[in-house]
Amino acid sequence: MKFLDFNKTASYKKLLKTAKKFKPLELGSVLDTARIRGCSTPFAAGLCYNWAAKHSSTSLLTTLQELADEQELIEKYKLLLDGEVMNTGEKRRVLHHLLRGQLGKNVVEKGNDLGAFYKKEFERYSAFAGAVHSGKIRGSTGETFTTAVQIGIGGSDLGPRALYHALEGWAETENKRKLKALFISNVDPDDGAAVLSSIKPAETLFILVSKSGTTQETLANELFVKAKLIKSGLEPSKHIVAVTSETSPLAHNKDYLDSFYIDDYIGGRYSGTSAVGGVVLSLAFGGETFGALLEGAHEADKNALIPNISNNAALLDALFGVWERNFLGYGATAVLPYSQALIRFPAHLQQLDMESNGKSVNRFGKAIKYVTGPVIFGEPGTNGQHSFYQLLHQGTSIIPLQFVGFKESQRGEDVEVEGSSSQTKLNANLAAQIVAFAKGKADSNPNKAFSGGRPSSLIYGQRLTPQALGALLAHFENKVMFQGFIWNLNSFDQEGVQLGKALTKKALSADSGDAALDEYARLLGIK
Amino acid sequence: MKFLDFNKTASYKKLLKTAKKFKPLELGSVLDTARIRGCSTPFAAGLCYNWAAKHSSTSLLTTLQELADEQELIEKYKLLLDGEVMNTGEKRRVLHHLLRGQLGKNVVEKGNDLGAFYKKEFERYSAFAGAVHSGKIRGSTGETFTTAVQIGIGGSDLGPRALYHALEGWAETENKRKLKALFISNVDPDDGAAVLSSIKPAETLFILVSKSGTTQETLANELFVKAKLIKSGLEPSKHIVAVTSETSPLAHNKDYLDSFYIDDYIGGRYSGTSAVGGVVLSLAFGGETFGALLEGAHEADKNALIPNISNNAALLDALFGVWERNFLGYGATAVLPYSQALIRFPAHLQQLDMESNGKSVNRFGKAIKYVTGPVIFGEPGTNGQHSFYQLLHQGTSIIPLQFVGFKESQRGEDVEVEGSSSQTKLNANLAAQIVAFAKGKADSNPNKAFSGGRPSSLIYGQRLTPQALGALLAHFENKVMFQGFIWNLNSFDQEGVQLGKALTKKALSADSGDAALDEYARLLGIK
Repeated sequence: MKFLDFNKTASYKKLLKTAKKFKPLELGSVLDTARIRGCSTPFAAGLCYNWAAKHSSTSLLTTLQELADEQELIEKYKLLLDGEVMNTGEKRRVLHHLLRGQLGKNVVEKGNDLGAFYKKEFERYSAFAGAVHSGKIRGSTGETFTTAVQIGIGGSDLGPRALYHALEGWAETENKRKLKALFISNVDPDDGAAVLSSIKPAETLFILVSKSGTTQETLANELFVKAKLIKSGLEPSKHIVAVTSETSPLAHNKDYLDSFYIDDYIGGRYSGTSAVGGVVLSLAFGGETFGALLEGAHEADKNALIPNISNNAALLDALFGVWERNFLGYGATAVLPYSQALIRFPAHLQQLDMESNGKSVNRFGKAIKYVTGPVIFGEPGTNGQHSFYQLLHQGTSIIPLQFVGFKESQRGEDVEVEGSSSQTKLNANLAAQIVAFAKGKADSNPNKAFSGGRPSSLIYGQRLTPQALGALLAHFENKVMFQGFIWNLNSFDQEGVQLGKALTKKALSADSGDAALDEYARLLGIK
Repeated sequence: MKFLDFNKTASYKKLLKTAKKFKPLELGSVLDTARIRGCSTPFAAGLCYNWAAKHSSTSLLTTLQELADEQELIEKYKLLLDGEVMNTGEKRRVLHHLLRGQLGKNVVEKGNDLGAFYKKEFERYSAFAGAVHSGKIRGSTGETFTTAVQIGIGGSDLGPRALYHALEGWAETENKRKLKALFISNVDPDDGAAVLSSIKPAETLFILVSKSGTTQETLANELFVKAKLIKSGLEPSKHIVAVTSETSPLAHNKDYLDSFYIDDYIGGRYSGTSAVGGVVLSLAFGGETFGALLEGAHEADKNALIPNISNNAALLDALFGVWERNFLGYGATAVLPYSQALIRFPAHLQQLDMESNGKSVNRFGKAIKYVTGPVIFGEPGTNGQHSFYQLLHQGTSIIPLQFVGFKESQRGEDVEVEGSSSQTKLNANLAAQIVAFAKGKADSNPNKAFSGGRPSSLIYGQRLTPQALGALLAHFENKVMFQGFIWNLNSFDQEGVQLGKALTKKALSADSGDAALDEYARLLGIK
């Protein structure tokens, strides 16, 4: 297997040439019924990726296919599935796909089959959640648990939180709602204090999530929570479960009611489908619901194995993203779900993408000479339309758009106003935006003119179910993975967070040895 | 008064030359105690703007001062304060500053003093809120109101929502909490259904907010809410107040318990300090609290009148932003409040900035030839540190950072772990990040090296009080205004939202006449 820097590939040079002849405004004139029908890739759980409103042509697709083949993207994905050490910096395997099913060889370490280990943990926390729901497991004063509070930050917060909000409406409608879930992440004491002031401690089960068991914010919040439990006359060890690795100080620890395990091969931002997401989601909506989410993710992972880029949604999405970033010079991507349930999904994708591919060295640790991961941001539509869409339509920079929409709402409650339901209005807005961005509008008054030629893609499905959510999550994980392979990055480490951690320790010491650091600490009242 | 395109100014050419000699890495070596102390501009309510970690030098500041003088930024601000028609496209005055106090001439229209009108409305809704709190005004079945639900979108949602969350912790600690507030914005029926499923209708007062009284999403949600009230056996007209303009169909309407007014001179994204924010915040925390917020904003507005850029925080912030955007080529700005209470503040600033200055034509409607508003995004620290900071530290694009921090937490509840409180840890992290971005770190392993030279600024204060929040809000409003003047834009219209609205209407009709629009509508299940 070759691991080439992107600018050393033949496809890179070919794409540079293609970019020179590129005419963005053609998008508006080519967008018609046939193109929209022809540019749709079904990938999993009834979801399709539609790329009719991307700047694509037969010849561009040919070159992108060449790039996929030349950089051996599918082969690299298979290596990863087979348990190769693809996180080169930290010398770790990358096994989040194995959490939702097996697509490669058995991955065995020290005699343990890791696929079986992940499956066993899923079954354990699924059963644990069942025992909480049935009232077999209760709080230290005998109360039934009604609320779960996850304590974690970064990947232990953003993914699980996004998934939780994404399924609340579905679960309430389908009668799957078991517990309410809340989240404490920030070391800002106002975060924990606000959550703790809103709950009944005797009915609350806390989920302490830290792979290493050493995360500063999470350990501080654990003590905050324990103090509250003790003050409420409760026994903390009956109100806290841990999600961690077996080598962490939190593992096999009598301070916790139970513990569920991941390992070093599950990166934080890829841990939504592990116990990190699974415990809280199983408590909230049942293990069966979380199992359905895993199925949807597994189906998307399978789709990502298809070598023909037109049939592989994640791969095609990745390739368009690289074309836009490296050759058209677009520096950001907006994620715009037309689904209120996906309110925190853009924040999760922001971590997933920017932490994975916001890098300047290749997987061997050598500096590279091309741009990598873009800025990712977004809010649900139609809210965003009344906010930053002005810049998207008429600003001086072009920002590719990633739309998501569903035919049906989650809750099915609706109202008819002026001949249409709110769900219909929502989707009419979404259809209108895609066309508006692509085609624009001429006007003799330049202030009312829209240049068009602004590319977007659309992921659409019937309804945001657990399966669809799993597929959506895995789609983006795989997109980011393929982009990392194209750019020859290690998408699975995060050395960029280390310097801040080290300087924080210094700032907390009496004399940091850095005058600037001490002065900022003084400004902020801590010295 | 001259209104010159930015690239026609002498300062523009001078800054182009300065940029050619620019060395970003100098930032790390110049950042010391003296610089940090010397680069602090107090502006309002105890807040300071610190710009020590910006790429600035005495000569750059001189050129930026020349730019401020040449583009007559203070004079243009004064014109606006005096009620000139600064929203040239829509031919409207721009009067949000007048909501919080008078700094210019009396603005009189058709015999009415508009400053007095805004003041009267503030007094009216403040008194109304008092009557709700005292129980004088109750629901249609005699229940005391415990919950307020704002129905609005865009500026009627993002600003008020951000301000509400920003003050909850303060209010609960200071015993100022009166009502709980919730928000319905999206036309996605799941948004309204979720909120309505969580409230007791008999105890809920709805605030219907639409300046024009014709906003599609808001009117659909109004009917959704009315249906719920009727189904609950309640009289809708006793449970809804309107915030609108006097010429809208919602005004002077017996369907509502009361109505509070703004006018066309208060732009949506600038309406946080009008009745749009004031009614819900007064209901939640009392009119006195909202009055304190207005005072803080007024103080920041006054600071923005100072011609010397080193003493005018909003102006200096604006100038640095233009320097970074137009001459250093940085395409995005991250807003990073180290305060969980500011969780939705970045989303508000995203609208404020991107909708105001995401434009490609000047205030006369002519195309311009330079870049304007950047992408704005952000999440609270320390959460963001565990997410997208990887890209900020080691990505291939440099993104300027706007930090915000406070010495004290809002709630004062805290826990000591390993010798420091959580609030101290929070601020140690903030100090560490500023230094890490500025100075970087050499390392023989490029994957562990940080180039540094990544600029940031810091707004800091004692505690996030209503006054401080008002000052923070006005700071950014004024920053955006000054940048609009520099770029010669009209920052107060939003023609970029119109095409989507028109196409949505078409998509809702039986035959839109646009085959692509119809096909997307079919994909999304609405045709």
